[in-house]
Amino acid sequence: MSEKTKRFFLPESEIPTQWYNIQADMVTKPQPMLHPATKQPLKAEDLFPIFAEELCRQELNQTDPWIDIPEEVRDKYKFYRSTPLVRAYGLEEALGTPAHIYFKNESVSPVGSHKLNSALAQAYYCHKQGITNVTTETGAGQWGAALAYAAKVFGLEAAVYQVKISYEQKPYRRSIMQTYGAQVTPSPSMSTRAGKDVLTRDPNNQGSLGTAISEAIELAVNTPNCKYVLGSVLNHVALHQTVIGLEAEKQMEMAGEYPDTVIACFGGGSNFGGVAFPFMRHKIKDGKQTRFIAAEPASCPKLTKGVFQYDFGDLSGLTPLLPMYTLGHNFMPANIHAGGLRYHGAGMIISQLLKDGYMEAVDIQQSESFKAGLLFAKSEGIIPAPESCHAIAATINEALKCKEAGEQKVILFNLSGHGLIDMTAYDQYLSGSLQDFELDAEEVKRSLAEIKNL
Amino acid sequence: MSEKTKRFFLPESEIPTQWYNIQADMVTKPQPMLHPATKQPLKAEDLFPIFAEELCRQELNQTDPWIDIPEEVRDKYKFYRSTPLVRAYGLEEALGTPAHIYFKNESVSPVGSHKLNSALAQAYYCHKQGITNVTTETGAGQWGAALAYAAKVFGLEAAVYQVKISYEQKPYRRSIMQTYGAQVTPSPSMSTRAGKDVLTRDPNNQGSLGTAISEAIELAVNTPNCKYVLGSVLNHVALHQTVIGLEAEKQMEMAGEYPDTVIACFGGGSNFGGVAFPFMRHKIKDGKQTRFIAAEPASCPKLTKGVFQYDFGDLSGLTPLLPMYTLGHNFMPANIHAGGLRYHGAGMIISQLLKDGYMEAVDIQQSESFKAGLLFAKSEGIIPAPESCHAIAATINEALKCKEAGEQKVILFNLSGHGLIDMTAYDQYLSGSLQDFELDAEEVKRSLAEIKNL
Repeated sequence: MSEKTKRFFLPESEIPTQWYNIQADMVTKPQPMLHPATKQPLKAEDLFPIFAEELCRQELNQTDPWIDIPEEVRDKYKFYRSTPLVRAYGLEEALGTPAHIYFKNESVSPVGSHKLNSALAQAYYCHKQGITNVTTETGAGQWGAALAYAAKVFGLEAAVYQVKISYEQKPYRRSIMQTYGAQVTPSPSMSTRAGKDVLTRDPNNQGSLGTAISEAIELAVNTPNCKYVLGSVLNHVALHQTVIGLEAEKQMEMAGEYPDTVIACFGGGSNFGGVAFPFMRHKIKDGKQTRFIAAEPASCPKLTKGVFQYDFGDLSGLTPLLPMYTLGHNFMPANIHAGGLRYHGAGMIISQLLKDGYMEAVDIQQSESFKAGLLFAKSEGIIPAPESCHAIAATINEALKCKEAGEQKVILFNLSGHGLIDMTAYDQYLSGSLQDFELDAEEVKRSLAEIKNL
Repeated sequence: MSEKTKRFFLPESEIPTQWYNIQADMVTKPQPMLHPATKQPLKAEDLFPIFAEELCRQELNQTDPWIDIPEEVRDKYKFYRSTPLVRAYGLEEALGTPAHIYFKNESVSPVGSHKLNSALAQAYYCHKQGITNVTTETGAGQWGAALAYAAKVFGLEAAVYQVKISYEQKPYRRSIMQTYGAQVTPSPSMSTRAGKDVLTRDPNNQGSLGTAISEAIELAVNTPNCKYVLGSVLNHVALHQTVIGLEAEKQMEMAGEYPDTVIACFGGGSNFGGVAFPFMRHKIKDGKQTRFIAAEPASCPKLTKGVFQYDFGDLSGLTPLLPMYTLGHNFMPANIHAGGLRYHGAGMIISQLLKDGYMEAVDIQQSESFKAGLLFAKSEGIIPAPESCHAIAATINEALKCKEAGEQKVILFNLSGHGLIDMTAYDQYLSGSLQDFELDAEEVKRSLAEIKNL
């Protein structure tokens, strides 16, 4: 193996200077976001009260395929980019597959995941607009940690509402956010009307992402010079993440290969879109026959078992109506360890691309995901995040199909993060106490019925 | 800043093919290890019952300056090497110093620290000798995690005795070891005579590194095809770590600079020796005026407040007598978070080099180390291990001297690991409950008196 290169890096001069905006190249554009009351399409200005203006424009930009990465953001990318493209010789050997498996290792960012790619961009645009404070919500804390660091980089104050039960049970990421200087508040809190309402009804409420979002937005709207930022689902977040796939494209070239299959785990879609969109442009524009596989949890399968229709992006129905694959915004996903995949819907771009047949989706049981993660840890050394384990499981399935068929396909997956602060999940798997969750078909039916007329 | 390169990588073909054995070049060689009863110098064969034979030979090799890195080990280095050499523009800016600060980022290894460099080598030599099982001890678990992974890589079974209180209070690294497939036993245990003895006397004993060492060695000696491995202090461990400095030397050349000062934290000496020895060879051979600074904790200051004499390497007095700077093997260091620096003595090579004036040492208070770590996290993004915080504090002190003097010196330090699984320590610092420990001069006097006649 010694003459073969295992890891491919780009020189800093080759870090992308533009993000790829797939909206501009899509044959069928995503349908517009709608105002929930008037049902009228939203314009960028309608989003200005919540988000930084440049981000609102990026969100709705369906014309420019390339968006310049500001020099200030690119400078900060250099703290950890390019991330390595790795040939997974160890995993290939463990599987005995003729497939060539590559992964893009986004776990090497200082905060341990791909989330920083968009956090830096969003913090920069806020800073540039003269905004001094940002708010967001976080569950397990991957996004919160990324935003906390990005805010520090651009001199912003960050207020993060962390779901109370995570705040108490997963203190490590809370500490990471505080180390970077963020103010972390367990949600529900008494600092907002939304939080007070919940606590008045139920003083022992353990919090939910829905409540945390409401608190973060309320704080943003009521604080001068303050905006709200979001870590997934939205188009501009996936846009920033395309730096992953654009780097991977050049690195695959260095390896002398092109992927037959591109795989990523799927929550809201930003890590999937990040690695997939740059490769997908060749499918859209040149008819290149690449497969794109989104790996979602079997307990929250919006892509494989949801419907395509307008729905709210949040539990409380505060957001615009989004055209998406959804299980219904009232669907409550089971409490799997891959907290980043527990979301009822898919981003608008992905939803349209899935509808139009450019990509496919598979669902993975929790125990299968950890089995895959364990094999990866033993063969490649890196302990993957519970979310990333889903991408690895899907990759292993494809690689084993290659083994059966004797096909030497090239598979690329995105390792969205490491699992070093998720070891309790591995503990449960190793001790046999990890649970799988059967999807309740009746609950999905009920949840979908509730959004039928939105 | 955008045209300046921040991170320097070597192509895989440039990963060193040999380790540097400074013993061969030292003007005054380390004095020999002595048999504790006969006081006769030990030969490599005397160590064969405990360690793999090749490691014993490396331990006593004072003639060959270059030792080939086996191709099998170099292949595994490629999983994470070269590690980046990083120009710390962020830290420089935060300090307003004219100094150029570089750090070698060993935290990017899959296990999060430099420990893997030697674990892979040791596991390989054991495997090559036909050994099937390895044992070791670990406190917080950095070394144990590295060994667990390295053992898996070379198909060995690993048994790790982890100090019981760490096993219970720091479950993350235990889970990491188990994820890689190691058998982790809280020490004292009932699986060895040494453990039983302790538990019989004191059923609630919380364990110590001394007891864990005794248990690991006992298991190794009593198990067929089993050897004991150690993560620091010994010469062959520092030898393997020189891959750090050898890479850094090439990378500094890429940056067009040569360090005026090389800094690392100091426990037993392997991470310090790893980054320093390759540069020190130019001081020994060519008279190059580089400063080498070991940063030790103020509560365990063997280099700055110990004496140079023969002492045991362990608490129980089971090891050979080693010529070392020591506080006495009965010295009990305060319970600082930088567990990897809580060791009473210094490796033999370092001790001789310090005695001969090739290097210097500084001591750092715990609170100063975390203050430095926090500044580093905010300015460079990476949350450093508590051990590495000591190197950062010493670096900051030197960089501020440059600022006062208006000198543009080049400082290189080794970032030995990240602190993502040590967040409780940061929590304490941030909440103001972190303690500094005054060194008890009387205790040091007592401890040194006990070894006077060894």
